[in-house]
Amino acid sequence: MVGTNKGNFNTPHLKTGDPLPPYTGKLRLYNMRYCPFAQRTVLALNAKNIDYEIVNIDLMDKPEWLTTKSAFGKVPALEIAENVSIYESLVTVEYLDDVYPQRPLLPKDPVKKAKDKILVEALSPIHTVYFKLVRGPDTITEDNIAAYHKNLTFIQQELQNRGTKFLDGDQPGYADYMIWPWFERLHVIKHDLARLDKQKYKLLLEYIDNMFQDPVVAEYKLPREALEHFQNQYKLGLKPVYDFLIQK
Amino acid sequence: MVGTNKGNFNTPHLKTGDPLPPYTGKLRLYNMRYCPFAQRTVLALNAKNIDYEIVNIDLMDKPEWLTTKSAFGKVPALEIAENVSIYESLVTVEYLDDVYPQRPLLPKDPVKKAKDKILVEALSPIHTVYFKLVRGPDTITEDNIAAYHKNLTFIQQELQNRGTKFLDGDQPGYADYMIWPWFERLHVIKHDLARLDKQKYKLLLEYIDNMFQDPVVAEYKLPREALEHFQNQYKLGLKPVYDFLIQK
Repeated sequence: MVGTNKGNFNTPHLKTGDPLPPYTGKLRLYNMRYCPFAQRTVLALNAKNIDYEIVNIDLMDKPEWLTTKSAFGKVPALEIAENVSIYESLVTVEYLDDVYPQRPLLPKDPVKKAKDKILVEALSPIHTVYFKLVRGPDTITEDNIAAYHKNLTFIQQELQNRGTKFLDGDQPGYADYMIWPWFERLHVIKHDLARLDKQKYKLLLEYIDNMFQDPVVAEYKLPREALEHFQNQYKLGLKPVYDFLIQK
Repeated sequence: MVGTNKGNFNTPHLKTGDPLPPYTGKLRLYNMRYCPFAQRTVLALNAKNIDYEIVNIDLMDKPEWLTTKSAFGKVPALEIAENVSIYESLVTVEYLDDVYPQRPLLPKDPVKKAKDKILVEALSPIHTVYFKLVRGPDTITEDNIAAYHKNLTFIQQELQNRGTKFLDGDQPGYADYMIWPWFERLHVIKHDLARLDKQKYKLLLEYIDNMFQDPVVAEYKLPREALEHFQNQYKLGLKPVYDFLIQK
C-alpha cells in the first residue's frame, strides 16, 4: 500500500473504506499525484534527497482517517512522527528546510528570503487563470488576464534582476519549486493564454525550459496524457482515474 | 507628513497628487489605519518596540509613487532601506522577526513554528465571513458558516491543547498577533455570527478578552466609532473618511 519515495510516486490512491497503512517510522507524505500544492512538498523532499514514503489519497472519496492526519482533510500533509502531522504546502516545505539542512531551499539572508516569499505569495493570479482554463475559459475576466500578465512579468523581472539561471541561483530553490507546479500544468493547456508570447516572455520561457531539465522536476513530472486526463475530468466535473499512471 | 511610531498612528492618509515624504533613514511602514493585514505588521513592530515611521495611504485614491514601494500597490509595505521594500503582511512580520531578535514572535522549534503557521494559514473562513458580514450578510452561505465555526473551533482547540494564556505562551506571539485583527473587527459587528456562543466558545472568548488587554493590542485598537464608520462606508461602497481619527 505504501510506496517508497524516489521513483515510486504512483502508489494507489487510498479511498473511503481503505485502512490506514501501519506506521513504519518513516517520514510520510499524504499526497495526491495530480495536486500542485502537494507537488511542492514532493519537490522539496526530493531535492533534499530525504527518505520518506508516499500515501496517495483519493480526494473525492476520502479515507475516514484522513482528518486525523490533516485537520482540514487536505493534502499535502506530512506525518513527522506517529500521529504528529503538519500541513499547508508552504508550511511543510519550510519545516523540511528547517529540519533537513542539506540543499537549503530558502535563502538565509532575510531580505532575499522575503523576496522569495513575495514571489510565491503573489502567485494567485496565475493559479486563478490556470484553474479557469481547466474548468471553463469563458469565466476568465479581463481583470484575471491583466493580473495574470502582471504576475508573469513580475516573475520574469525578478529573473532579470537576479541575473541567475534560476530564481534561486545556479540550481532551483524555494521560489522556483513553489511556483513550478503551475508552469508545468499551464504547459499542456491548449489556449492562447497558456502559450506565452515568445518575444515578451523570452527570458521566462528559457527559464521554464531550464526548469523542465532540472532532475528533481523531471523525476516527478506528470506525463502529458495523465495531466490531460485529469484536466478533462475536472472540466467535466467527473472523478478522474486517480491511478491512471498505475493502470497504464 | 510622516508620523513617528509609538502613539502616533493617525497620520494623514496620503492620496493621489501628494508627494512622497522624503526618506529619513528610518524604517518606514506604508499602512492604512483600518487594514487588518497592515495591522499585523504594526503589531509586530510595536511588540518588538522597533523605531519606525508610518506613512498612511488612501487606498481608494492611491499616490502615484505607491507601486514603487509596493509592486502590487497594496499595504502593508515595509521600506527597509531607501527604495528597498518588502510586502505581504506575513512576509514583513517574518522579516522583522529575523532581523530584530528582541521579543521573538515565531517559535524557534520547527514543529511549533509550523503549527503557528498552520493556524494563520487556516484563517480564510473567518476572513470570508467577516468581509461578508460587513459587505452583505445575505451572501453568507451555509458552507461559509460551517467553515467559520470549524475555524473558530480549531483555534479554541489549539488554545486548549497548548494550555497557555495565549497561543504562544504567557504573552502573545506570532499566531496571536497574525490572527488578532479579525477578532478585533468581528467584535463590533452586530450579527449573531459575530456574537460567539458563551458556552461553546468559553475558552476562546476568555482569550479574546485577554488579547484586548494586551498593551500592544490596546495601543493600536481602533475606537468602535471609527471601525463602524469604516464598515458602514465599505458596506455602501462609499469611500471612508480615512482620516476619521484625525478629524475628531
